[in-house]
Amino acid sequence: MDVPVDLAAKLALLDEPYEPGIVGYYNENKLVVVKVLGEFVWHAHEDTDDFFLVLEGRLTIQLRDREVVLEAGQLFVVPRGVEHRPKAEVETHVLLIEPRGTVNGGGAGGRLTAREREI
Amino acid sequence: MDVPVDLAAKLALLDEPYEPGIVGYYNENKLVVVKVLGEFVWHAHEDTDDFFLVLEGRLTIQLRDREVVLEAGQLFVVPRGVEHRPKAEVETHVLLIEPRGTVNGGGAGGRLTAREREI
Repeated sequence: MDVPVDLAAKLALLDEPYEPGIVGYYNENKLVVVKVLGEFVWHAHEDTDDFFLVLEGRLTIQLRDREVVLEAGQLFVVPRGVEHRPKAEVETHVLLIEPRGTVNGGGAGGRLTAREREI
Repeated sequence: MDVPVDLAAKLALLDEPYEPGIVGYYNENKLVVVKVLGEFVWHAHEDTDDFFLVLEGRLTIQLRDREVVLEAGQLFVVPRGVEHRPKAEVETHVLLIEPRGTVNGGGAGGRLTAREREI
């Protein structure tokens, strides 16, 4: 990373919801932007926490016993091993941080599983 | 972390520039907000990258051979071992990510060295 990363400009490169784009790295983690619209899949990451920062829109993170609603400028970390499902009713822009090699659906599979791609 | 973390609300709890406040954790890392105004000290972290995301204002990160200027919504990662000095001419709000136990001045010491504090 030689220049600042403009998150809005990176998000503008993404066409579809749930297509993550890697914008940088921090130690062994990847920094990822993604558009969220509709429901993702229920999943958990057994080996890592899951960092969400909402940049625009409103993100609901469903947990098995409750929901967490994030507005722009709010972050939440889903602890490792905790099942969750992100969803959004309006197009929502999110910064994620997860270890390199983490599969976005936590291995749950399905059509929303994405390959790693730098943008 | 049981509830969303509102970054602007956390920043409002900070009185002085360069008083970091820990707002959460992601794996072995702390999530820190800080107000920047004026110049920090030249330092490097030998064992970790240094993550900066500007939430409000404008942050200049001086490197030995150039400067990186970050506006709101822009992030930059200073690679481990690279000397840098953050500065800002207007009060600037920043989200930092660094390993738990990292000293804010990279061990350079001085009056701006801060203890770890959760807010």
